[in-house]
Amino acid sequence: MSAQQLPTLQGIDFDKGGGLVPVIVQDASSHAVLMLGYANREAVERTFQTGHLHLWSRSRQEFWYKGERSGNVLRIRRLTVDCDADTLLAEVEPATGETPICHTGAETCFFAELEPSPLDARHRVTQADTVER
Amino acid sequence: MSAQQLPTLQGIDFDKGGGLVPVIVQDASSHAVLMLGYANREAVERTFQTGHLHLWSRSRQEFWYKGERSGNVLRIRRLTVDCDADTLLAEVEPATGETPICHTGAETCFFAELEPSPLDARHRVTQADTVER
Repeated sequence: MSAQQLPTLQGIDFDKGGGLVPVIVQDASSHAVLMLGYANREAVERTFQTGHLHLWSRSRQEFWYKGERSGNVLRIRRLTVDCDADTLLAEVEPATGETPICHTGAETCFFAELEPSPLDARHRVTQADTVER
Repeated sequence: MSAQQLPTLQGIDFDKGGGLVPVIVQDASSHAVLMLGYANREAVERTFQTGHLHLWSRSRQEFWYKGERSGNVLRIRRLTVDCDADTLLAEVEPATGETPICHTGAETCFFAELEPSPLDARHRVTQADTVER
């Protein structure tokens, strides 16, 4: 895809992911990455029709209108597709801001900083030793 | 996973994605989302060992040390895992900033704003008509 082409829903490559594309959800104001969801063609159509983020729940195998129960729906500010048309980025604005995005109560699903395990650390030391010898 | 647990590489759920986890790559300074990549366990190990982003190329079926040829490697500033441990967020700092992230030359792979096609627009009008009747 070139920068000159205007992508539409019809141009999204749903085949690569078996009918689903990953959707990166980013807060349009804070720019925090909130979560990664998945959408099929109809979820993207519903997103366009309503202006609110709709996803497909892989675990429940059903449409997932994010915030439907809590009222904290995610308004779409900008929807972009990546250069090979198989991933979406949804920049969103929470309607109320009262309900956290993550089911744990955190503001973003990415709250847990990954640390190398002791095993990884040993592996690093071994590699360094090898280099120094 | 609770916020109290410190996640390690061993806790990442690679099984759900057939050995791969999606990796959201975000510029640590501008907070722009740059691309979505994929990593297997060894790519994450290499990322820990070097401090530079390593991915797995699904199209080439090989390890992908991002920026290896151009020298514009992506230094890891922070690596987080999401609440169900199946997606990573890599906040990165380009080493040189001279080479664009995207193969098209764009600063991010998400440069193409998605627009509803004429078909989607017709669908929306039809829905509105139905409501008004």
